[in-house]
Amino acid sequence: MTTDRHISRRQKLIQAIRKAGLSALLVTNPKNVSYLTGFTGEDSYLLIGPDATQIFSDSRFETQLHDECPTIQAEVRTARTTMPEFLAKELPKFKLSQIGIEARSMTVDVRDSLVEKLSPLQLVSQTGLVEELRQIKDPEEIDELRLAVDQAERGYALMKSLLLPSMTERQAAHELEHGMRRFGALKAAFEPIIAVGSHAALPHYRAGLRRFDESPFVLCDWGAVSPRGYHSDLTRVWGTGKVPPKLLRIYGVVLNAQQAAIAAIRPGVKCQEVDGVARKVIEQAGYSKYFGHGLGHGIGLDIHEGPRLSPISTDELKPGMVVTVEPGIYLPGLGGVRIEDDVLVTRDGCEVLTSVPHELEA
Amino acid sequence: MTTDRHISRRQKLIQAIRKAGLSALLVTNPKNVSYLTGFTGEDSYLLIGPDATQIFSDSRFETQLHDECPTIQAEVRTARTTMPEFLAKELPKFKLSQIGIEARSMTVDVRDSLVEKLSPLQLVSQTGLVEELRQIKDPEEIDELRLAVDQAERGYALMKSLLLPSMTERQAAHELEHGMRRFGALKAAFEPIIAVGSHAALPHYRAGLRRFDESPFVLCDWGAVSPRGYHSDLTRVWGTGKVPPKLLRIYGVVLNAQQAAIAAIRPGVKCQEVDGVARKVIEQAGYSKYFGHGLGHGIGLDIHEGPRLSPISTDELKPGMVVTVEPGIYLPGLGGVRIEDDVLVTRDGCEVLTSVPHELEA
Repeated sequence: MTTDRHISRRQKLIQAIRKAGLSALLVTNPKNVSYLTGFTGEDSYLLIGPDATQIFSDSRFETQLHDECPTIQAEVRTARTTMPEFLAKELPKFKLSQIGIEARSMTVDVRDSLVEKLSPLQLVSQTGLVEELRQIKDPEEIDELRLAVDQAERGYALMKSLLLPSMTERQAAHELEHGMRRFGALKAAFEPIIAVGSHAALPHYRAGLRRFDESPFVLCDWGAVSPRGYHSDLTRVWGTGKVPPKLLRIYGVVLNAQQAAIAAIRPGVKCQEVDGVARKVIEQAGYSKYFGHGLGHGIGLDIHEGPRLSPISTDELKPGMVVTVEPGIYLPGLGGVRIEDDVLVTRDGCEVLTSVPHELEA
Repeated sequence: MTTDRHISRRQKLIQAIRKAGLSALLVTNPKNVSYLTGFTGEDSYLLIGPDATQIFSDSRFETQLHDECPTIQAEVRTARTTMPEFLAKELPKFKLSQIGIEARSMTVDVRDSLVEKLSPLQLVSQTGLVEELRQIKDPEEIDELRLAVDQAERGYALMKSLLLPSMTERQAAHELEHGMRRFGALKAAFEPIIAVGSHAALPHYRAGLRRFDESPFVLCDWGAVSPRGYHSDLTRVWGTGKVPPKLLRIYGVVLNAQQAAIAAIRPGVKCQEVDGVARKVIEQAGYSKYFGHGLGHGIGLDIHEGPRLSPISTDELKPGMVVTVEPGIYLPGLGGVRIEDDVLVTRDGCEVLTSVPHELEA
């Protein structure tokens, strides 16, 4: 449903469009279209600029457009016209000389076809104009992220209550997704990583056929998608038997690194610095070469969005950003530990949105 | 795992690459990479041509590449190099003057970056070279599709056994996905459409908050993804109370249309003709304007692939193609009927892979 917050987002984007020297932007990433208009359907583009705001869609979505964003002008095509043909007919009406395109969402095929049909109108590749705005969450978005966290945490508790030693990682992953949905999530935020024993040393592992009783510990990285499409993202490691001392040691290091990083989060701090705080704790414990990824990332309509918390990030923390903080140590062949929470940057510090305990229970 | 069938696929593709006048193709669609190599990871490109076969990946996938496609040369980058930078260093070694790119998978952003870094190497937009090969399934793929059908059908039976009048469409959709996974599916082939009553008139509906006891019939469109990534796709309508006579009537028409179309499927027949057979039955019953979509599509590693069965399709049926046959009649406000089965084109006719009964039980 279009609300004042959608209007305010579009106003901010129009400022950014002017600043980029464009007369308009053709928004093709469906999450960006939804963010700016409230429309939740697919295959629909938004043209936006100081002198133009219009959705291009097709007849399947006519009713939905009317329900979800009645104040935005929409043109719908029939199935007999392709989107590039439709745009070739509609865009010239706006008498623009050049428009920005979202280069990270549009495929080469669509661009080639538009260039040919729209000439002499220039298409200028752009990246990140809407994504930049999406980094700062408004109160409704923060509520939705809290809901996604709650759904993830309740699903996790349910999944753990159902575990049997004979279950496989994949069976547990399926119980976890089903559990989150039971509490209102649309789906899992991504295919959950459930990694028994040495599988926990592989940061890109998903969930396979290893059984819980094949090793004394498990890593679980999961999240939920709330009804309005917001993503939570958590990681916990827990013991299912006698946890090896080496794993206990790295668990302590990772937890210290994470807590130190969270303590450093407040507006005005460079994301690089927050990453550095965690990295230093891990380095001083002698494990720097076993922490190969960045410290965290923004969450929202996407599971990975800005800002990035990494050694090469140029972002700076601002109130309303929501980021994961997820240091890890991975020891090939033995296993790994990652601890991940979701953190809201507030006016004077931060608030941890996630609440699953950090104890490595056995 | 790379096998003889992957080698045979690559040989066929190399012929197509020669025929297209290219010296090589950069395969970036991850399903195409997997189809050609057996590699199941992400973010990895395959360069293939008469004089070059090489995977470009990153260090996360080193072990997996070695396990899944040990005979293919692979170069892996570290996290310090982006893929375009990496390609700029590696591709000139092949001394090619131009290479094809997959224009339907590559984003404008990646292309812009490659064009800049690879100049004077020419990038030529291509579409469908690998997708064309994927239309004809080999025996292992057909077995995998049979498995995806079986998982979908068993999950469906389980979901129906769990239904309560008070359940919502969405709850049923979640039970359906969980059920399919219980029988070994990786996930649902797409977000299941479960549409109670008038919702069945909306072909793009998903599953919302309407309860089963709010109307006397339901449409369910669902499928499973098998462990190796193959998709099944079925639709059934069933009664949960006294079904309106008008719905019973269109049910009969749609079933006749579907059975007539299936009877027309054999090698050498134009896909357009098969569509026409179903469309004629619906037209003669007076409902042509309520059947607005094509008759069907290929299934495989994607839920929608070639060939297309539609009034404007130029495809022709060949042995080894597997297509959905799914006519429908949609009456706004009242409801709709679509009946969908998965059909294998054999040497002398066809075989229906799906076996859920067609009776409109009440």
